[in-house]
Amino acid sequence: MTKIIIVGGVAGGMSAATRLRRLMEEADIIVFDKGPYVSFANCGLPFHVSGEIEKRSSLLVQTPEALKARFNLDIRPETEVLRLDKDKKEVVVKSSDKSYRESYDYLILSPGAKPFVPDLPGLDEATNVFTLRNIPDLDQIMEKLEQSPAKATVIGAGFIGLEMAESLAKRGLEVTIVEKASHVLPPLDEEMASFVQGELQKKGIRLYTNQSVQAFQNGGKTIVLEDGSQLETDLTLMSIGVQPESSLAEEAGLALGFRNGIIVNDTYQTSHPDIYAVGDAILVRQEITGEEALISLASPANRQGRQVADVIAGLERSNKGSIGTAIVRIFDLVAASTGLNERLARQKFLDVAVVHTTGKDHAGYYPGASDLILKLIFNSKTGRLYGAQAIGQKGVDKRIDVLATAIKARLTIFDLPELEFTYAPPFGAAKDPVNMIGYAAINIAEGISETVQWYELEDELAQGAVLLDVRTAGELAKGYFPEALSIPLDELRSRIDELDPSRRYIVSCHSGLRSYLAERLLKQHGFQVKNLDGAYQLYQAVRPERIKHG
Amino acid sequence: MTKIIIVGGVAGGMSAATRLRRLMEEADIIVFDKGPYVSFANCGLPFHVSGEIEKRSSLLVQTPEALKARFNLDIRPETEVLRLDKDKKEVVVKSSDKSYRESYDYLILSPGAKPFVPDLPGLDEATNVFTLRNIPDLDQIMEKLEQSPAKATVIGAGFIGLEMAESLAKRGLEVTIVEKASHVLPPLDEEMASFVQGELQKKGIRLYTNQSVQAFQNGGKTIVLEDGSQLETDLTLMSIGVQPESSLAEEAGLALGFRNGIIVNDTYQTSHPDIYAVGDAILVRQEITGEEALISLASPANRQGRQVADVIAGLERSNKGSIGTAIVRIFDLVAASTGLNERLARQKFLDVAVVHTTGKDHAGYYPGASDLILKLIFNSKTGRLYGAQAIGQKGVDKRIDVLATAIKARLTIFDLPELEFTYAPPFGAAKDPVNMIGYAAINIAEGISETVQWYELEDELAQGAVLLDVRTAGELAKGYFPEALSIPLDELRSRIDELDPSRRYIVSCHSGLRSYLAERLLKQHGFQVKNLDGAYQLYQAVRPERIKHG
Repeated sequence: MTKIIIVGGVAGGMSAATRLRRLMEEADIIVFDKGPYVSFANCGLPFHVSGEIEKRSSLLVQTPEALKARFNLDIRPETEVLRLDKDKKEVVVKSSDKSYRESYDYLILSPGAKPFVPDLPGLDEATNVFTLRNIPDLDQIMEKLEQSPAKATVIGAGFIGLEMAESLAKRGLEVTIVEKASHVLPPLDEEMASFVQGELQKKGIRLYTNQSVQAFQNGGKTIVLEDGSQLETDLTLMSIGVQPESSLAEEAGLALGFRNGIIVNDTYQTSHPDIYAVGDAILVRQEITGEEALISLASPANRQGRQVADVIAGLERSNKGSIGTAIVRIFDLVAASTGLNERLARQKFLDVAVVHTTGKDHAGYYPGASDLILKLIFNSKTGRLYGAQAIGQKGVDKRIDVLATAIKARLTIFDLPELEFTYAPPFGAAKDPVNMIGYAAINIAEGISETVQWYELEDELAQGAVLLDVRTAGELAKGYFPEALSIPLDELRSRIDELDPSRRYIVSCHSGLRSYLAERLLKQHGFQVKNLDGAYQLYQAVRPERIKHG
Repeated sequence: MTKIIIVGGVAGGMSAATRLRRLMEEADIIVFDKGPYVSFANCGLPFHVSGEIEKRSSLLVQTPEALKARFNLDIRPETEVLRLDKDKKEVVVKSSDKSYRESYDYLILSPGAKPFVPDLPGLDEATNVFTLRNIPDLDQIMEKLEQSPAKATVIGAGFIGLEMAESLAKRGLEVTIVEKASHVLPPLDEEMASFVQGELQKKGIRLYTNQSVQAFQNGGKTIVLEDGSQLETDLTLMSIGVQPESSLAEEAGLALGFRNGIIVNDTYQTSHPDIYAVGDAILVRQEITGEEALISLASPANRQGRQVADVIAGLERSNKGSIGTAIVRIFDLVAASTGLNERLARQKFLDVAVVHTTGKDHAGYYPGASDLILKLIFNSKTGRLYGAQAIGQKGVDKRIDVLATAIKARLTIFDLPELEFTYAPPFGAAKDPVNMIGYAAINIAEGISETVQWYELEDELAQGAVLLDVRTAGELAKGYFPEALSIPLDELRSRIDELDPSRRYIVSCHSGLRSYLAERLLKQHGFQVKNLDGAYQLYQAVRPERIKHG
């Protein structure tokens, strides 16, 4: 009888175990997990802190008993695998009461990734610093919250950091975020993340960017930042990032790569043929760059778990890699991304272009429509899609899911207008934002439109370009570029002689659509003109200090 | 100076006009529309009836004045094009006060489609029968509603028919729907449409299927059906379907095809080289079958309008065809489809297989998750995707948009599990319903699972198969198959000797997931077994008369 041991009973490990049972009814399948729970909802943890997921028990998706009854799995929680004896094909395990060996025919490692915690002065003495990876971590935080702490600090403004900042604020704590990068959500580009920062500020969350923690003092009650300033805190969450939990693999002499990720081949075999690995601990191919990467996301982990089961059962499967798609809700705003951001794309590829558009999540004439800001990163010669980002209140998940599908399918910008989406007024528009950003990208690729990015504007103006704002007087009253000329779009044809044909113009409006119309109008009248991509709305979000009001 | 005339100022026509201006600043662009309004929100009309779109003015997206100011377009509403003089390159038009000729270099026809109204006895005398295509139609209906009619009848249960049925019911009318086909929403398959029928019944709407109207009597107050029964009605909407508005093209001798659709080539040229046509009046290539089709949807019309402008401006564009994607909200339920339905796919292709899955719109452990029922139509040999349908309260648009993208991109069922979607508990799941239906389809294609469709069950049972229901006792109490054996899934391994290895089994549960687990279990124990696709939930919706209660 085939005997399969799985180390790690969440996501990848549990997907492997249940799929194995469906394919190998007679196999012995044992799942070890050092924690007390398997198959819990780790992505749900922050939402129990906020109270949205009211019951802790809702997070416990499966129990060992239920998994035994349904899948005949031998689940052994609170059992740590101490060592792999790969020559004997045995693992050495330790539970509360005993230590023993268990043999295997196949071993699947699904140990996951653990929060990275730097070795900072004073951290050892701090009793109020937490990480959030599993239910015991959550229990500790909930216990701390029972003491009604007033101030919380979140170190690291990635997806989990922001979800926890929101959750703690919703519980009434005064929350401060410290982020080492220049902006929150480092997977997004700065200008897209700036909308999230605006939302955090609106909700009263204090944010320090370009700052890292240097030390903890006063038993953790005081945090010392890079610039010497100090934060008082009752509860601190470390969410700087994660690292592969690969020490077991390392000790067993399995080959590790980049950042200690476990190296596996396309069929999830490690450097030792009987030992497989899946999930956040393995290195995968970033599909767009073709490079090795650590992608710690639930969706690929679950897929890998199922695939490794298929491989062991003799089906033909291979890991095709991942593009990386993620989403986060921050209060009333949603931010999501797929594929490469602009920064990475420009590092890896030539002819990278980007475009921003603003649309509505559904038809503007139907009540409740809200702005949806999309960014597309693509190749201006071939039209290849590198990545996309979206910000809005609604419909963000849908557009990024569609664009993630387009990237996976190797569609180009030229295909995006062809996509036929569901349209009724409550759900979309006859020209969906995804169609529209395709058109916008094609205009750039075909030279019909030329753009200036927000980070290029100052240089362009310094080099003599003239900024022309085509918004209305009512819009200008809410905020304006101090250096801009103003001619409302609908007056541009009749006032075109106010412009100097010897100058270069950059046009802007609110979101970039009217300025594109102005660009086309002026271009056809012989002007040298470019469109400020994303226009005023984007610029004021990422460079608020350059905008005048009143 | 190039002079372009456009006939029809909605969707395709207006997209052409504005894009032409962006590419041809100097062109004379004239838009004729026989109605009083151009560029109105035709898909929004039913939502003004319901009151959701409160102001009639919200439907008037653009005015001739605004289009003049912004795009320098010469919009001439209430001006009918009577005749095309294609040798002289002139159109003969008539407005309220005059008749005149206008010359053109290029002519674009975008006349749309009009509601099909059969010539029924008594219709001429009926004063309470309406169609809904444009603002004047809407105005007539709203005027009628001022008289506080009590009973409304909607003839034709397509997308507009159902939206209007809901809108009229929300205004307090007692609504009856009459549909000639065996189920509402003929683009969907019967079992998926049956959920919509359940929702209509729940909301108190009377439904007659397999029934057509034979005559109107009593000035339209009485409707006589096929079977002789009579309906009393104060207000009747005819929404049987639409037909191309191609009489102008026909009179001018342009080539027409299937159902009088205007024949155009890939660059929208009609049989006469200076005359182009776009929108609901033209024949397009159904991308999946490769056959000529009439696809009356806003999204393709808008794309075609833009593309024909590009063609006239000298850019390289071609009409790649359409797959047809549509959505409708019916009270608390949403139904959507893309590509071919099962019926059509089976007519056109060999090796067609289908699969139904039930998932949640977002992670089940996060509050507010609701059922999402998906159907995939595919080729069981090649994995090619033919179509998809979805029913649910939330997330329907997203999944069909993703699947429409997958179909357009020629992905197969083998690609669906690879798609990486946004996942955070409020938005999705680590294994999205689209991933899951991909897995389910692959199981079928690879022979890991065999299914019986709802319409095959009776035959299978008559031929000796045994139905085994693996739901729990609590579930059975809510309704059950009278002929089924019952063994709850979690007891199946221990009670397997209750089954007869010489019989063929069909397993069912609530939604098909547990019965699939039972199928795998039994298969590996040597049983001949198939899974009832969609299981009890689907079956009781489409064949409620075969279910017992209590």
